[in-house]
Amino acid sequence: MTYEALFEHISQKKSYLCIGLDTDIRKIPAHLLKESDPVFEFNKQIIDATADYCVSYKPNIAFYEALGAKGWESLQKTIEYIPKSHFTIADAKRGDIGNTSGLYARTFFDPSSSGLNFDSVTVAPYMGSDSVTPFLDFEGKWVILLALTSNSGGADFQRLETKDGLVYEQVLKTSQTWAGADRMMYVVGATQTKDLANIRTIVPDHFLLVPGVGAQGGNLEEVSRYGMNKACGLLVNASRSIIYAGNGLDFAEKAKEEAQVLQKEMAVYLDKYCN
Amino acid sequence: MTYEALFEHISQKKSYLCIGLDTDIRKIPAHLLKESDPVFEFNKQIIDATADYCVSYKPNIAFYEALGAKGWESLQKTIEYIPKSHFTIADAKRGDIGNTSGLYARTFFDPSSSGLNFDSVTVAPYMGSDSVTPFLDFEGKWVILLALTSNSGGADFQRLETKDGLVYEQVLKTSQTWAGADRMMYVVGATQTKDLANIRTIVPDHFLLVPGVGAQGGNLEEVSRYGMNKACGLLVNASRSIIYAGNGLDFAEKAKEEAQVLQKEMAVYLDKYCN
Repeated sequence: MTYEALFEHISQKKSYLCIGLDTDIRKIPAHLLKESDPVFEFNKQIIDATADYCVSYKPNIAFYEALGAKGWESLQKTIEYIPKSHFTIADAKRGDIGNTSGLYARTFFDPSSSGLNFDSVTVAPYMGSDSVTPFLDFEGKWVILLALTSNSGGADFQRLETKDGLVYEQVLKTSQTWAGADRMMYVVGATQTKDLANIRTIVPDHFLLVPGVGAQGGNLEEVSRYGMNKACGLLVNASRSIIYAGNGLDFAEKAKEEAQVLQKEMAVYLDKYCN
Repeated sequence: MTYEALFEHISQKKSYLCIGLDTDIRKIPAHLLKESDPVFEFNKQIIDATADYCVSYKPNIAFYEALGAKGWESLQKTIEYIPKSHFTIADAKRGDIGNTSGLYARTFFDPSSSGLNFDSVTVAPYMGSDSVTPFLDFEGKWVILLALTSNSGGADFQRLETKDGLVYEQVLKTSQTWAGADRMMYVVGATQTKDLANIRTIVPDHFLLVPGVGAQGGNLEEVSRYGMNKACGLLVNASRSIIYAGNGLDFAEKAKEEAQVLQKEMAVYLDKYCN
């Protein structure tokens, strides 16, 4: 998917919502457990109910991997089921030496290899350039690089001071020599809104994937005010607050309601801040 | 496996060799492709031929994941097949926010979840403490944290200077507050032997997992001289130079010969430097 196509979809839907399919078999409604693939059945109903209100879906791979081969089958069915209009993110946080990162790229981008065909994958920057660039060899696919994360340990190394700025600022600067805003995005934690203005001075044009709104407590208006650029430039993720909004037979309807609330709020911020 | 049991196995075998099961279906001998699970069949024959000369096996998860659900089945069969005496490493380089790292920990450590039961997993440090500590909740299991990697991009961020030392030195220092040498090891690239003496001043007792000997060109004597401590403290990995030593019907025999050469060299260095 191109930068322009993504912005077009955002403008049309008046939404920059990404829904995290962090589907935990221990948390899904009990009535689904009788299905042959409860995880896929849950995802299918969530997707049917929410696709009108979001522009992206982001399965976190840990949830599928934890179920072994069966989890990979659920993931494959899920990614096939997501409408082609929606930007798909493999939240995998991979990264290895060059030839091995090439295999991870095949995993998520080459359906003839693993059966998966995501638009993008999240990558950890610690191992540097050759751990990231193999993902860029797949035309039209995106790397979403971890920059500043919202978890409690995020500050341990990302905020270490170097002579040219904090470590995460160096990640933002150095990685721009690997690809432009048409192929790379950055993960920026929503609980760090005070840093967003700073980040926008380093990466004015890039999309930022912002997790942490909803269950993790980020503030959507603050994120939109400081993070939005003239092509929106934001994908704001909510996972648990949407997919586990209900736990009964009506779980998908409850998820739809939550997604709709966020979409309506986003429509306001797009009018207000996207310019 | 305990620190003491690992050292005991090393002393008995006179080997600190770890064999990387980076099994690429595009590179294994053609005659295996007729098997129902060629990747497992390859691994099985490699393990049978080399188990006497090594103390550890390290499948890099990318090679299995790239084959989707079928790859996970090959991985599961492989890990079940490895003798219990051998220390197993899931070279996965995972790391996510706390509850998600917990799921990755289940993936590799809890056989009732994914079918896998590794002794250890490699973890990327970028997301900090809460991305690492969930792996330590599994008693008797190990975290092997990326510190200084041997790939060309390794210097991009790992060698940034902070006021208290390089970033990788900060990783070594900070992570020691999370677990001791009985539960944590570090990945240190073998092409960086000049750094090993320095690393040993920061982590004198920890095991170091040293990839890059063999196909990646590290020097085994240098690594042993500067990296060894009184409990050996080294697992030196070789992958391609062993598993692809041959490509015919005798591939396992060729792998055995290569493993044996390294083991003999290691026996000398254990006598010389392990004290």
